[in-house]
Amino acid sequence: MGTSSGTAATDRPASPRRRGAVLERAILDAALEQLGTVGWKGLTMEGVAAGAQTGKAAVYRRWPSKEDLVADALQAGLPRFDEAPDLGSVREELLALCRQARDAMYSRPGFALRSVIHECDTLEAERFQGVIYGGVIEPSIRLLRQVITRGIKRGEVRPDAANGLVFDVMPAMMMYRAKISGCEWNERDIEEMVDQLMVPLLRPAGA
Amino acid sequence: MGTSSGTAATDRPASPRRRGAVLERAILDAALEQLGTVGWKGLTMEGVAAGAQTGKAAVYRRWPSKEDLVADALQAGLPRFDEAPDLGSVREELLALCRQARDAMYSRPGFALRSVIHECDTLEAERFQGVIYGGVIEPSIRLLRQVITRGIKRGEVRPDAANGLVFDVMPAMMMYRAKISGCEWNERDIEEMVDQLMVPLLRPAGA
Repeated sequence: MGTSSGTAATDRPASPRRRGAVLERAILDAALEQLGTVGWKGLTMEGVAAGAQTGKAAVYRRWPSKEDLVADALQAGLPRFDEAPDLGSVREELLALCRQARDAMYSRPGFALRSVIHECDTLEAERFQGVIYGGVIEPSIRLLRQVITRGIKRGEVRPDAANGLVFDVMPAMMMYRAKISGCEWNERDIEEMVDQLMVPLLRPAGA
Repeated sequence: MGTSSGTAATDRPASPRRRGAVLERAILDAALEQLGTVGWKGLTMEGVAAGAQTGKAAVYRRWPSKEDLVADALQAGLPRFDEAPDLGSVREELLALCRQARDAMYSRPGFALRSVIHECDTLEAERFQGVIYGGVIEPSIRLLRQVITRGIKRGEVRPDAANGLVFDVMPAMMMYRAKISGCEWNERDIEEMVDQLMVPLLRPAGA
């Protein structure tokens, strides 16, 4: 309300003037915040500017459209998935990947991404396919491939299991149950999925 | 435009006057049509009335809100899934279920349902949970349970496979790949899912 302490009363926004990377970060954060609260369709450049305590012009100067802004915000906000560490068994490694995916899903960028996936129609969604593919799908497939390939070498996993359908099972189940039954993927849900689904699916024939 | 042949020029809508079940059916059809074209958020009672060539009052007289109308339209439009016929092998029966699910997914009520699932936030979606659960989830679980139980009796399927996680795999994969990669589940996609995912998942340990 009014002017914050230490700032002279002018026409400028209440927060101290920020430039370059700091202001950019504040705008991207505000965009994720908006996606999480009002969703893709409710997000406006005005709302993002207000959330970042800046003017609309500062937003438009950097991002000519809502699509550009949201693509950058998702890109910057998504967690990095680097390596799937060797934990000695495929079961432990799958549990670790699921926990990581669950944490990402319920992070602010995760909520934002789901809002984009669910609300965009196919045409709009194309703008984000690159972000979603490069930021989520491709890294998760890469980690699952690492874990499954290591399991094959250990003899825990059947040799023909390193394929795209197998890699998609956990992401598909996590999306489906979150959407359909509001599943929040607590520790027990994760263990059941790995033990009742993934371990039997990966087991070598004859094992 | 204007009056259709055989109808006197009055203030009434252009189409001949319909009553009761016929008009109701036309309104429900128009609601599904609207969901498929403009989606849940774009659907209006006015638009539905126009689509059914009737007045807004005729719609409101039967359904006090958009939620009530859409719930009834989905309920009336969804295909009935009765029995999973015995085709002699779990593979053939799963293929048949997938084809049926794919056809339902790409029917008009299927598009309408997906629009509701994807666009509604959790609060709105609660209104439709009953319809979705009773009209889609429950029947598909029931059919999958039949097929898997029959497979267990035949010795084709491991005895502990008749569980909720296994029942969810095919619906989850169908939703995920349709949404993420625009997969249309043609015959080859369906066969690959059954052969690379379901058959290994259901195979008895040691087989």
